[in-house]
Amino acid sequence: MEKDYPFVVIALIIRGSNDYGVEVMVKVGIVGGTGYTGVELLRLLAAHPDVDLALITSRSEAGLPVAEMFPNLRGHVDIAFTVPDAAALASCDVVFFATPNGVAMQSVPELIDAGVKVIDLAADFRLKDTEEWAQWYGEPHACAGLLSEAVYGLPEVNRAAIREARLIANPGCYPTAVQLGLLPLLENGLVDHQRLIADCKSAVSGAGRKANVGTLLCETSESFKAYGVPGHRHLPEICQGLNTAIAGKTEGKVGLTFVPHLTPMLRGIHATLYATVNDASSAKVTQAALQTLYEERYANEPFVDVMPAGSHPETRSVKGANICRIAIHRPQGGDTVVILSVIDNLVKGAAGQAVQNMNILCGLAETAGLSGIALVP
Amino acid sequence: MEKDYPFVVIALIIRGSNDYGVEVMVKVGIVGGTGYTGVELLRLLAAHPDVDLALITSRSEAGLPVAEMFPNLRGHVDIAFTVPDAAALASCDVVFFATPNGVAMQSVPELIDAGVKVIDLAADFRLKDTEEWAQWYGEPHACAGLLSEAVYGLPEVNRAAIREARLIANPGCYPTAVQLGLLPLLENGLVDHQRLIADCKSAVSGAGRKANVGTLLCETSESFKAYGVPGHRHLPEICQGLNTAIAGKTEGKVGLTFVPHLTPMLRGIHATLYATVNDASSAKVTQAALQTLYEERYANEPFVDVMPAGSHPETRSVKGANICRIAIHRPQGGDTVVILSVIDNLVKGAAGQAVQNMNILCGLAETAGLSGIALVP
Amino acid sequence: MEKDYPFVVIALIIRGSNDYGVEVMVKVGIVGGTGYTGVELLRLLAAHPDVDLALITSRSEAGLPVAEMFPNLRGHVDIAFTVPDAAALASCDVVFFATPNGVAMQSVPELIDAGVKVIDLAADFRLKDTEEWAQWYGEPHACAGLLSEAVYGLPEVNRAAIREARLIANPGCYPTAVQLGLLPLLENGLVDHQRLIADCKSAVSGAGRKANVGTLLCETSESFKAYGVPGHRHLPEICQGLNTAIAGKTEGKVGLTFVPHLTPMLRGIHATLYATVNDASSAKVTQAALQTLYEERYANEPFVDVMPAGSHPETRSVKGANICRIAIHRPQGGDTVVILSVIDNLVKGAAGQAVQNMNILCGLAETAGLSGIALVP
Amino acid sequence: MEKDYPFVVIALIIRGSNDYGVEVMVKVGIVGGTGYTGVELLRLLAAHPDVDLALITSRSEAGLPVAEMFPNLRGHVDIAFTVPDAAALASCDVVFFATPNGVAMQSVPELIDAGVKVIDLAADFRLKDTEEWAQWYGEPHACAGLLSEAVYGLPEVNRAAIREARLIANPGCYPTAVQLGLLPLLENGLVDHQRLIADCKSAVSGAGRKANVGTLLCETSESFKAYGVPGHRHLPEICQGLNTAIAGKTEGKVGLTFVPHLTPMLRGIHATLYATVNDASSAKVTQAALQTLYEERYANEPFVDVMPAGSHPETRSVKGANICRIAIHRPQGGDTVVILSVIDNLVKGAAGQAVQNMNILCGLAETAGLSGIALVP
Repeated sequence: MEKDYPFVVIALIIRGSNDYGVEVMVKVGIVGGTGYTGVELLRLLAAHPDVDLALITSRSEAGLPVAEMFPNLRGHVDIAFTVPDAAALASCDVVFFATPNGVAMQSVPELIDAGVKVIDLAADFRLKDTEEWAQWYGEPHACAGLLSEAVYGLPEVNRAAIREARLIANPGCYPTAVQLGLLPLLENGLVDHQRLIADCKSAVSGAGRKANVGTLLCETSESFKAYGVPGHRHLPEICQGLNTAIAGKTEGKVGLTFVPHLTPMLRGIHATLYATVNDASSAKVTQAALQTLYEERYANEPFVDVMPAGSHPETRSVKGANICRIAIHRPQGGDTVVILSVIDNLVKGAAGQAVQNMNILCGLAETAGLSGIALVP
Repeated sequence: MEKDYPFVVIALIIRGSNDYGVEVMVKVGIVGGTGYTGVELLRLLAAHPDVDLALITSRSEAGLPVAEMFPNLRGHVDIAFTVPDAAALASCDVVFFATPNGVAMQSVPELIDAGVKVIDLAADFRLKDTEEWAQWYGEPHACAGLLSEAVYGLPEVNRAAIREARLIANPGCYPTAVQLGLLPLLENGLVDHQRLIADCKSAVSGAGRKANVGTLLCETSESFKAYGVPGHRHLPEICQGLNTAIAGKTEGKVGLTFVPHLTPMLRGIHATLYATVNDASSAKVTQAALQTLYEERYANEPFVDVMPAGSHPETRSVKGANICRIAIHRPQGGDTVVILSVIDNLVKGAAGQAVQNMNILCGLAETAGLSGIALVP
Repeated sequence: MEKDYPFVVIALIIRGSNDYGVEVMVKVGIVGGTGYTGVELLRLLAAHPDVDLALITSRSEAGLPVAEMFPNLRGHVDIAFTVPDAAALASCDVVFFATPNGVAMQSVPELIDAGVKVIDLAADFRLKDTEEWAQWYGEPHACAGLLSEAVYGLPEVNRAAIREARLIANPGCYPTAVQLGLLPLLENGLVDHQRLIADCKSAVSGAGRKANVGTLLCETSESFKAYGVPGHRHLPEICQGLNTAIAGKTEGKVGLTFVPHLTPMLRGIHATLYATVNDASSAKVTQAALQTLYEERYANEPFVDVMPAGSHPETRSVKGANICRIAIHRPQGGDTVVILSVIDNLVKGAAGQAVQNMNILCGLAETAGLSGIALVP
Repeated sequence: MEKDYPFVVIALIIRGSNDYGVEVMVKVGIVGGTGYTGVELLRLLAAHPDVDLALITSRSEAGLPVAEMFPNLRGHVDIAFTVPDAAALASCDVVFFATPNGVAMQSVPELIDAGVKVIDLAADFRLKDTEEWAQWYGEPHACAGLLSEAVYGLPEVNRAAIREARLIANPGCYPTAVQLGLLPLLENGLVDHQRLIADCKSAVSGAGRKANVGTLLCETSESFKAYGVPGHRHLPEICQGLNTAIAGKTEGKVGLTFVPHLTPMLRGIHATLYATVNDASSAKVTQAALQTLYEERYANEPFVDVMPAGSHPETRSVKGANICRIAIHRPQGGDTVVILSVIDNLVKGAAGQAVQNMNILCGLAETAGLSGIALVP
């Protein structure tokens, strides 16, 4: 530190800086923001030390102060929803899309051209294969050319690419929990990649904030059910990520049975992952060896916490926090490895991961604005 | 029917009868009854047309009217808890034990000798292997000789034996949901019995009604977690049942990975069961063939409901009802069959199944007192 | 029917009978039935020994088997929703309307003319004053002439009139809990009728089963709020009932502050009622005297349970049951009497009370089909 | 510290400072800390920029890392519970007691003598009257002499005294919500102080984290009940505070009927407060005038938010946040004013208010470490 620039230097301790050591405030816009990922993004950005929350758009709510819709933001967010305006958006450094699937792809190309960095929290840019996208999302992709450029925003895999990206596809909630849980096994070729099972349980907020009988309290409280067993849009996204992990190491593609379930709670995903070890007698797949493998794989990851051996992570231990907690089991010494992976679907599974991507993208400290502790109880 | 006994004959339509067509009221006692299976048993028995609820014991609550502890029973149950008394119990036709594990085995032999039929809702007589019992329950069995005589009270498997039994081991909640879900596949040798996975989710009432930090609302609400992944007492019970199903048909023993989870709700178990088909191209394992297989297997079962193809049963659809609802899937045409099986852990998973066993045992209509409809919402 | 058929005669012991001692099955139709009062009505009627559930209408769901929408009814209700048909409805003995407010009044006159007894679970006929109705429900009444004839179906007040009625206005949920709680005080002129407070808490099912952001699980779980403080439609209904209770005994009208609250649960209303005693030193308003007063007032009421002195009734003690439980307090010996009154909003607050009214109307046992015990836990 | 260290001076912009403008880290100890107020205190203090969390004691858990008991603190709190040690505690600047009632009063005098500032989150020092304390808490007070010195830590009333205090009695949860809701009315003599009603609803965490059947999920979920209607320990505390507010302005004492209820949720208190205006025609008690009164009374309070006229604050809008939100109603233009007041019982009702008191006591910014936004959903 140079003593003649005390203010700037010290400010850097708590604020972000660009590559030249000069403090910057990132000017941020949000498109869509009346859903649960939207309000969560607002909560995180309003408390982020390096962010200037410039605008948030909503056609239907234009004019309404954000804090009127979400009174928890009273005193923290004082802007109102506005009608989307291309020029205003183009003046931002970063624009988040917290819109339903299929919306972002209509406006992203123009923003990218204007030099704005875009982080899409929806699914528009998550799949690389145009046809697969069309098949699962039920319409042709509007800007297929950007699919290959978009960086899949899982920092634990793609940090370097995220740093350079113009367009980030923020991962889905299930895919985040499942990939972080399975990656170390697959990257090291330890399990049968054709017989993977992901039994996942999600809180109801994963279904969004739209008027819908199926997610009324009286339809979902005090009940538990699987859904989408024949096929769910997160299946190809997870497989794409896992296939990348085994590429060049193992032949063939992963085979995954993915069963999502709806759990009567507000926030949280619990992925219970089953894989069969390739060589049950190998020293690499003892429970202790697997524990070490995971601890090493995630040693430098600020937002992945490998729990002590024997743990059973609770979703509440990540409620409101940008963290994935993982535990490794090999029950009864059998051939099956069981990985437990929990996240808050709205944080590490959506808005928190989006902010993490923004931090990386903008050269801020990766943890900036993301150090909130989970609320227990 | 003889026309000169109109009253008796007609009464039989609504009441039970013994083998001679004469109406009987079954005199019932309950040992222990201050827990959730206890109060549920009381709810069912109080409304049962053929039952005379004679006594209920609780050392700690002796003297307390039952309806004072459980005000929902006001106007329906007017007896008080009493200190256990051998003579009083011996005067009953049937005695239910709704006690913690390890209690029933102390008193059952004496009752059996006195000619009382016993239904144990705890785990004392569920395992056939004495050593296995001792290993999982942490103490030697007090009357190992009765283990072989005790009939495992899963009517869908053992109805004939139940009818003749003196002692019934009422199945555990998870074992009921898992066995009913997997039996048709295993009985017909359609899947790899060494690679079974049961990912099960239970409501909190499964943990009982004892003062315990771990099941406080503030520890379990708004959270989801796995528990007992290294080993759970229901694992050997499930394996014992499944091994019986494959005995004589398949070599070896079943291999099962069983992971129970705690779900923030009062009642309900959802078992998500995964099995790998032996021959993926066989006409016997198409989704349609499996649907037919299950429908036929359970066609005459009053308390197993095979849902239409493509269904996702909700636990609330069985809340308070003595029924197991099952759906069959083979997602993406892959090798993995996914069975969804839901019960109310306190009814088909405990008290309801116990009453069903009593009905069979006493020659009553199997459905007597068990036709209540699930409470939705 | 002839006397040499003992079956019939004896069956009457357990079935209903008309005034001539001859068994009758009541042919029942339901208009609207896709909401929570609808499914609850179906649950109760399907198990009712004297009811033939002939038809249920729903324009939007015509053709859909009822049990497909509500799988808890599988095996119990095998009819499908049909388009409303005047002739079919006219062939019923009793028709229930479980429709939104404003629907029943369009079709009731025609049905009444056809000799059908009508029980409206909505608010169309609850208020006697046409202008008041129009003011609170926002449209002119379509058949104001029937308002005076309609009998307000609170059996504890109007049993005799219900017996003779052609048209029953089934009370609202809050009004049932509040009136049953306050009536003994007001009927006996013991409290200041101008300073009544009803602080009421309702489960979310009271808001109905329509697609609505405000009643999503993620909007209502883990939160508590008041609503409608400036004015709620149940206010005039409650006041009308209480004014009737004081008519001829006390001058003036009741003054009531009614504050409803939304509680994160499925079922249940808890009314906490505050009244100021007129004469604090009177022997009539000691806590013991009030206890006796309530016990005597409701001694012959099958569905009102005055709890022992000092009780705090839980809503779960009435979950699924047609009962109102009441406790009386006079805290710290002060001037304020506190009455606690709980019901299941869908049973004694809606469908159960409707069945109770049907029973009275049809000369059946008042408790027929209504003896279900509350589900705890 | 010396002026040629710019780092320190600039850091003061964002950190606290004592009266001399020099940065200080407050060394903090916690006695007891295994309950819900304890873990919440840890969450807040771990993120507080001016606090050095030095020690936390628990006899029963000594040696256990705090983050092992509360995994949400992993990565944020790395100390372990220790056996209480007088010298270690005496080395702290501030000691919080998060112990059961009756514990703090045993050790506080010694700590005070050692110059430590004490903030007691239990009830030991909340009442000024020794006899009243003994009556409600069932034992004689162990250091009655300190009762008069202790400052009741409601900053909105006692900020100046808190600044100078050695011992702070942190208010109860209900008393915080009720007093903040009623104070403006009483301070201005606008309502009948002898006819106050506080109908309060609390989440289950208010009952603490001890093994107890009554607060199991299966006893409290899906149910709602009043409790303690005959008398609750928060009654004298509230009355004491309100009596102080009217002292010198109005004759006599307040008369309050206080009814607490248990609500099936984790966090939150909703107080619904009823008061009768003294002069219904006065311009001071129009709804608009009352709105203005409240806004002015709390204009400079960072942690009291007067909502817009017509609002119905939800408890979730304060979940995890140190804020009390208040709405004012005068329904139907009647004589009754209805005030709605919500807090998070663990934050503004306990740990957050304790930190606020610490901030004031230590000359830090009152809002330091307390700017977290409520978690919605």
